[in-house]
Amino acid sequence: MPDTSVVDRLRTALGDRVDTAPAALEAARADRSGHASPGAPLAVVHAESTTDVQETLRIAHATRTPVVIRGAGTGLAGAANAGPGEIVLSTVRMRQVREIRPEDLLAVVEPGVLNGELDELLAEHGLWWPPDPASKDISTVGGNIATGAGGLLCAKYGVVRDAVLGVDLVLADGRLLHLGHRSVKGVTGLDLTSLVIGSEGRLGVVVAATLKLRRVVPGTPRTIVATFPDVRSAARGSAAVTADGAQPSIMELMDARSLAAVHALLRLDPPAPGLAQLTIQTDGPAASAEAAQIATVLRAAGGAVTVTDDAAEGERLLRIRRSMHAAMASLGTTLIEDVSVPRSALPAMFDEIARIEHDYGIVIPTVAHAGDGNLHPNFITDEPEIPETIWRAADDLFRAAIRLGGTLTGEHGIGVLKSRWLAEELGQDQWDLQQQIVRVFDPAGILNPGKVFAPRPEGSDA
Amino acid sequence: MPDTSVVDRLRTALGDRVDTAPAALEAARADRSGHASPGAPLAVVHAESTTDVQETLRIAHATRTPVVIRGAGTGLAGAANAGPGEIVLSTVRMRQVREIRPEDLLAVVEPGVLNGELDELLAEHGLWWPPDPASKDISTVGGNIATGAGGLLCAKYGVVRDAVLGVDLVLADGRLLHLGHRSVKGVTGLDLTSLVIGSEGRLGVVVAATLKLRRVVPGTPRTIVATFPDVRSAARGSAAVTADGAQPSIMELMDARSLAAVHALLRLDPPAPGLAQLTIQTDGPAASAEAAQIATVLRAAGGAVTVTDDAAEGERLLRIRRSMHAAMASLGTTLIEDVSVPRSALPAMFDEIARIEHDYGIVIPTVAHAGDGNLHPNFITDEPEIPETIWRAADDLFRAAIRLGGTLTGEHGIGVLKSRWLAEELGQDQWDLQQQIVRVFDPAGILNPGKVFAPRPEGSDA
Repeated sequence: MPDTSVVDRLRTALGDRVDTAPAALEAARADRSGHASPGAPLAVVHAESTTDVQETLRIAHATRTPVVIRGAGTGLAGAANAGPGEIVLSTVRMRQVREIRPEDLLAVVEPGVLNGELDELLAEHGLWWPPDPASKDISTVGGNIATGAGGLLCAKYGVVRDAVLGVDLVLADGRLLHLGHRSVKGVTGLDLTSLVIGSEGRLGVVVAATLKLRRVVPGTPRTIVATFPDVRSAARGSAAVTADGAQPSIMELMDARSLAAVHALLRLDPPAPGLAQLTIQTDGPAASAEAAQIATVLRAAGGAVTVTDDAAEGERLLRIRRSMHAAMASLGTTLIEDVSVPRSALPAMFDEIARIEHDYGIVIPTVAHAGDGNLHPNFITDEPEIPETIWRAADDLFRAAIRLGGTLTGEHGIGVLKSRWLAEELGQDQWDLQQQIVRVFDPAGILNPGKVFAPRPEGSDA
Repeated sequence: MPDTSVVDRLRTALGDRVDTAPAALEAARADRSGHASPGAPLAVVHAESTTDVQETLRIAHATRTPVVIRGAGTGLAGAANAGPGEIVLSTVRMRQVREIRPEDLLAVVEPGVLNGELDELLAEHGLWWPPDPASKDISTVGGNIATGAGGLLCAKYGVVRDAVLGVDLVLADGRLLHLGHRSVKGVTGLDLTSLVIGSEGRLGVVVAATLKLRRVVPGTPRTIVATFPDVRSAARGSAAVTADGAQPSIMELMDARSLAAVHALLRLDPPAPGLAQLTIQTDGPAASAEAAQIATVLRAAGGAVTVTDDAAEGERLLRIRRSMHAAMASLGTTLIEDVSVPRSALPAMFDEIARIEHDYGIVIPTVAHAGDGNLHPNFITDEPEIPETIWRAADDLFRAAIRLGGTLTGEHGIGVLKSRWLAEELGQDQWDLQQQIVRVFDPAGILNPGKVFAPRPEGSDA
């Protein structure tokens, strides 16, 4: 049985990198999902090296103590929430950028490197790593990999899975594997790198990653803002842009409630009632021509359109979208959902959201990465915990997304919040098979147990 | 024990889709690798539907009969070669294009669809599926997925793994799984779609694939040909292009021997002795500016450069590169290798090839997808079988690629030809783990046994 003797063994091996301060334990109970584990974990290990990770896992494995791997804690599905009897293995102190190779368009980094600081380092070389979760100033590369993160730029520049060549992975028993390649192409055996991406801490601990970089796109982006009298028109506008063939780097949709909330937070003049907004950027050599093409399509779709080639003004306009999370938090306890549908189904998905608002008597401010069909409906409540009505509404939402050919989660992951719906989307056979694969990596079942695959009993975690 | 009674059961279930004609059995012994299995398989099942695939596998599973999945047989590593006691499950008759959705940039196709015919169908909608193996006129989408195929356009437009959203997979016991998504983003559970891509028939049978499409790139590509006095200079030229930041859609390198062989095959004037060639294309809105930028870089690197904006002339120039396989076949028995290295290591890899030519007293005509560091050294022999000297030289080549941070195989796969080197690249722990994953999908071990993971005893297959 895991108990405090595990902490003694960790402390003997790792000294003051083992943290049992109540504040540290308390902080590890929750991520940014608004949900917390039922109680404090045993200890937080602040790993500073691969050896620290291996040593921690050897002790955890020998004592069969569950381990929750944790980066910056910016996750939105509870996958890094740690509870009683668990060790927290934090990788935020592993933040070395080991290599930047402009000639090979790759970098090798440790998992605790922040997206924002990586951006700055790479920019000095004219390089760029595309994944840009909205939390990029505070999120880590390791967390990006664990969740298979997305962001605003995915429709044109891809998700994390498109931008990682290899990872070094420590298994549950402490062994170190080198997965993937440094070359752009490579098909030696099964693609375990891709399997690790998005595995939410169930397969091992990523201690280094070889990232596939791009050159910074030259020139100034164009920013297009289009407002529509209602959200369905805005969704049809975004679908028309995709169907027309232009490839914006960013295409974000905000419904009336989210737009109003952000305007209030930023002390901007309130938008007209019901007004929904698309914020679009084009970049690269065709930025100007594509912006003009998109403006034409949006006007034809009934939008009021403005275009700017001023970079600062473009950033100011995008800041409205990037302030969404803070605006929602200012309204109450928030459950941020993350359904994704084929792009042409966006208008139909907004119809479903309107129906659910009506049926359950709630409001669901929603933003969408409209360029790739990924929606973030926000369920807001005055209660400190998510009430059962909202869970039922979320259940309705997930089923609607799946009916429309979509998925439960585009970029946030399953964690604890969505595990009860996972088997429904995957089918029981695939759900069983995936768990068997987890057992190949972690036969003792010590890595993030209960996350992703465990059925979530009603109300047990929230 | 598998025996002819299996064939009787198959015939009862599948009628004349079960083929035991000697010519069909003989053809299934070999792919385009130049190697054949030791003898004829039991039967070829020409599956016409998912149900046919399931029925075949149920019978194979019940009788523990090994099954070799086969597309067009254009593989280059022997993964689809079938031998005594084995059933061949051919998917080439499953060639329905089930959906083309321009508004969602996706298509759903069956595995037997040829790359070339898919290109034509998609072009009617202004769409395009980027993977373009050199064999694209005769290769199938299912084969592309099984091998994780690459091609000429990968550096800019990605490999198969970047272009598949989901697959329907029949497991060894006949159960059907739906893996992946129709949405661009999706992180529900483990990414089994990526795991299946490049798994060379060891995990299941792909019976449908949801492909991620692009719009046809507008405008006329520019084609740049640069000749250099020796291959090392050409390799340095290509590395300089990458380092300079332009992004060609195609960048192919041919060394003197391969260039001379193709010129002879196509009855063109022989090139100057020693002359190596880069053939480059740029496309999209910056095609012209990038072509000019690349020409400047290549001239500075010592190349003699010509640029054309004539599409037909560009195709004629690329045909020289695409004729490489036929040119090599005209020289004798060919072992086409497929090492891949970080792009900056291309010149060093050519040095290693020159050293190996010298050390073993052989010639190794080599072409490279220089934009992504993927080389195809061709070992040629007058013998009908690859002699041991060439295997030793290949062994030396693989180790050199790995030393330079590269891999055994960029896009052809392991099959039977490279299985003896796989553990060396993966490490024993990862090799063991990968086999355990295979057993999760196929506990009875009936799918393509001996491929990828089996140590290959000297000379047993060739």
